[in-house]
Amino acid sequence: MAIRKGRGAGKPSGKLRVIPLGGLHEVGKNITAFEYENEIIILDCGVAFPQDDMLGIDLVIPDFTYLLQNREKIKGIVITHGHEDHIGSLPYLLREIKAPVYGTRLTIGLIETKLKEHNLESVVERYNVNAGETVKLGKNFKVEFIRSNHSIADSVAMAIFTPLGTIVHSGDFKIDFTPIQGDVIDLQRFAELGRSGVLLFMCESTNVERPGFTMSERSVGKIFEKIFEDSDGQRIMVATFSSNIDRIQQIINSSVKHKRKVCVMGRSMTNVVKTAIELGYLDMPNNTLIELPEIKNYTDEQLTIIMTGSQGETMSALSRISSNEHRQIVIKPTDKVVISASPIPGNEKNVYKVINELMKRGADVIYEGLMDVHVSGHARQEEIKVLHTLVKPKYFIPVHGEYKMLRCHSALAVELGMDKKDVFVMGNGDCLEITPNGAKHIVSAVTAGQVFVDGLGVGDVGNIVLRDRRHLSQDGLMIVVVAMDRYSGEILSGPDIISRGFVYVRESEELVREAKEVVNVALDECERNSVNEWNYIKTVIKDTLKDFLWQKTKRSPMILPIVMDINR
Amino acid sequence: MAIRKGRGAGKPSGKLRVIPLGGLHEVGKNITAFEYENEIIILDCGVAFPQDDMLGIDLVIPDFTYLLQNREKIKGIVITHGHEDHIGSLPYLLREIKAPVYGTRLTIGLIETKLKEHNLESVVERYNVNAGETVKLGKNFKVEFIRSNHSIADSVAMAIFTPLGTIVHSGDFKIDFTPIQGDVIDLQRFAELGRSGVLLFMCESTNVERPGFTMSERSVGKIFEKIFEDSDGQRIMVATFSSNIDRIQQIINSSVKHKRKVCVMGRSMTNVVKTAIELGYLDMPNNTLIELPEIKNYTDEQLTIIMTGSQGETMSALSRISSNEHRQIVIKPTDKVVISASPIPGNEKNVYKVINELMKRGADVIYEGLMDVHVSGHARQEEIKVLHTLVKPKYFIPVHGEYKMLRCHSALAVELGMDKKDVFVMGNGDCLEITPNGAKHIVSAVTAGQVFVDGLGVGDVGNIVLRDRRHLSQDGLMIVVVAMDRYSGEILSGPDIISRGFVYVRESEELVREAKEVVNVALDECERNSVNEWNYIKTVIKDTLKDFLWQKTKRSPMILPIVMDINR
Repeated sequence: MAIRKGRGAGKPSGKLRVIPLGGLHEVGKNITAFEYENEIIILDCGVAFPQDDMLGIDLVIPDFTYLLQNREKIKGIVITHGHEDHIGSLPYLLREIKAPVYGTRLTIGLIETKLKEHNLESVVERYNVNAGETVKLGKNFKVEFIRSNHSIADSVAMAIFTPLGTIVHSGDFKIDFTPIQGDVIDLQRFAELGRSGVLLFMCESTNVERPGFTMSERSVGKIFEKIFEDSDGQRIMVATFSSNIDRIQQIINSSVKHKRKVCVMGRSMTNVVKTAIELGYLDMPNNTLIELPEIKNYTDEQLTIIMTGSQGETMSALSRISSNEHRQIVIKPTDKVVISASPIPGNEKNVYKVINELMKRGADVIYEGLMDVHVSGHARQEEIKVLHTLVKPKYFIPVHGEYKMLRCHSALAVELGMDKKDVFVMGNGDCLEITPNGAKHIVSAVTAGQVFVDGLGVGDVGNIVLRDRRHLSQDGLMIVVVAMDRYSGEILSGPDIISRGFVYVRESEELVREAKEVVNVALDECERNSVNEWNYIKTVIKDTLKDFLWQKTKRSPMILPIVMDINR
Repeated sequence: MAIRKGRGAGKPSGKLRVIPLGGLHEVGKNITAFEYENEIIILDCGVAFPQDDMLGIDLVIPDFTYLLQNREKIKGIVITHGHEDHIGSLPYLLREIKAPVYGTRLTIGLIETKLKEHNLESVVERYNVNAGETVKLGKNFKVEFIRSNHSIADSVAMAIFTPLGTIVHSGDFKIDFTPIQGDVIDLQRFAELGRSGVLLFMCESTNVERPGFTMSERSVGKIFEKIFEDSDGQRIMVATFSSNIDRIQQIINSSVKHKRKVCVMGRSMTNVVKTAIELGYLDMPNNTLIELPEIKNYTDEQLTIIMTGSQGETMSALSRISSNEHRQIVIKPTDKVVISASPIPGNEKNVYKVINELMKRGADVIYEGLMDVHVSGHARQEEIKVLHTLVKPKYFIPVHGEYKMLRCHSALAVELGMDKKDVFVMGNGDCLEITPNGAKHIVSAVTAGQVFVDGLGVGDVGNIVLRDRRHLSQDGLMIVVVAMDRYSGEILSGPDIISRGFVYVRESEELVREAKEVVNVALDECERNSVNEWNYIKTVIKDTLKDFLWQKTKRSPMILPIVMDINR
């Protein structure tokens, strides 16, 4: 896996194509393809989380059409870090194509769990790569893993060496001068690459709208230490992201110092902690970790409980504890609960609900705003400027952000001296085509988009199904069933009316009775006019009932007329 | 309406009861009752906006049970200001009870519109009261309106004089030393009341978690002036809250200065601007306001368009413009759009979507974070401390906030020197009972809660209907219809399967075919065992199909078995 330096051949003449392929509203967040001649490499392969209007959807994965059409070209998948939005779609892609996966040790460790869940562990090749190492993929690509900092350990940025030049991709990053585990992001390597000439820089934009510099993860540890010092006689519970191993390490450190045992709760928290201990990313001193049933053997001030639920997720440990639905843990006025996370936009109300409930049960709750118990894993403006200044690329694509952030990042690059024409604000499915003569932005070059995962179904819930779910969620439904003689059109049974999610029927008998009457009148009318075309009758029932219900209630439930034809 | 000073009689011996009655998660936000002997007065009567899980609900109003049970005691309703969460429920209460309504001129003006919409204008007594004036309600209450500042003009705080002492209620407030219209909040009057002794202080808590002082509304005007100076050749559009008349005034001022006509869009914006001009709260110079169809007569730099939609509401003017669905306005790269509001928690994603869409169409978008184009209408910690320090009450109830805010406010009061036992963190429906001997907090003293309004229905959508809507929204439904001979149990037609919001049927014919087969097998089994009890057959169909679908898809649609019995 050493870097093979230089290429003997003459000037390369091929086309390099860079294609952000996935991310819900964020460009190139979940997956990006790099293509040169007959070879493709893929960077990251993650999921997005469904928006509020994607009712019932569990996960959103990228549309893999382009990759499946070009499956024989794919030489490998490199992964920057182990967060779900960067690894979560791997099983869905890898059950369709065969390609080796490369990541740092913790990243591959987290991918293992995923492959096992999908019964893919025996068919997928995967390789551990250390930061600083380079892998060769196909004839045209070499990828160097560059040490970075983020809210999960073992994150890397990537340098992708192509026949036309070097691409630097930041991955998700921050500059943490005093990281908990590992070393500070390898700024010298970025500088070295910049010095020798970078063709294209792709940089994340999550916090690009925020001025200043993100605080070091270590600053949170100091706050935790204060909290622990201040908690005589109290049981401490901390909710945080399961993947934030450095955060968990700091909580363990304070616990050990204050002679507390540590109990870990929640499926993903337990999984990640197990993997992190096994791989040596988490230093858990002997006799520190205890199982949940053991907590009864300790006093409150001997206990720290670390759990999931920092986003107020309904089924999480913290949420169930807050609503007194947890079997083993009941909140007491002597409990101290720390929410060590920011609510992700959209989750605020759920998080506040949990805080309110915990406080109503008497707990002392510490959350962002009261104390600095969380820092972001993403670089702010000044950190982003550092990377730009070291890398000094020829071309630049802002990635990982909504359009407004990409625009903001683009302005930042221009402010730092880039020519506006060398900055490309792209969308998923767009392609930046680079030749020795220049770069061209091709809009909607390939198929890209989202595919919904609902239960076992991948892609079987589309816009029509979602539209129906939305309609049903707003006003419910009303079913009208009539049985008719196939030949005479005589009504043999019904009309019967069944409604769900519309009105509480016991209180609306009168309305249902009137609705039935309205349908009867419409059916009589049909009979008088000798109409016996089922579809026409259904339309008449639907329209009549719709008008009636709107006039009576100003609501529009979904109306489903069912006509059964009986052959007597 | 003068204050009758003093009371001849001896020491009063009655009970004063203070009952916060409504507000979704916020205590006493929407309505509060004050009761002494046989008299009740009501402060504010607003709506709450439905949470995400209240599917299809339009409005949430307070449960009026307690007031209806005591209708003959109600002497009047005093309103602090004209925001929906303080006036929106008035029509629902006033169609049930008869009581005079008191408010400042703008507040009553906004209530007029509401009464008209509900055909109540001829039956409801309402009175304009100026800040500084006092009204007498019943024998026991006098209420003084105290000039205040907030994000709507003509807001007041209230001093309620009772036989047992004075209650001061802050209403929604901020301290704006340089307000746009009217004068700064009447701090001297608060001081005077404090000097003469305040029994109970009730103070809002919206921004109590935020340190510092909320900026003056005037600071936004300065930013607008900069934006207007910077917009040569650009059409300016501003989205803001329709009720923020001072904000609108400042936009008009800059427009006039820069020789722009002003066009107003959106139903609530048009209504409020009309009312505000009529009542003299908005100074719109002649030949400034134009109608939408007239905009084609002006160049871009002669136009300012003020509209609703600052929260990304789907049907608002701004949202439709951003998605190019507006008939009269099409975004051009020379447009400048200012979102003059903060996203209310829960609305972030919708607001960002609108910003992204506008930017994609080339508009220059200015939003909070880029420039200070918004200030809050609510006091922060230092302002709240000012009121506490002036009022110096005997007892204190923090109101208008989620539980975590009330706790924070309670801590602030204690920090300022109050005894913890004199601070009461209450819930809606709780009662603070005050006698000459002391104050007692009674939990859940009266019926309180939320009533859902959906279309014309008030209270007919309850938990069962919502549970069904939630179920339908997640996995849709599957209907199974069978027609059977009433006597023999022979199947005459079906089973037919109809699904909505479950899978896209054309792509899942096989699944539906299998489902039918599963139902057939179950029905055969019933027949073989001579089961012909309809309900039992329905349960069998439901359970069998549920297991089958879960196993095949890991989804649980609502299953509705319908058996029609035919009398041949």
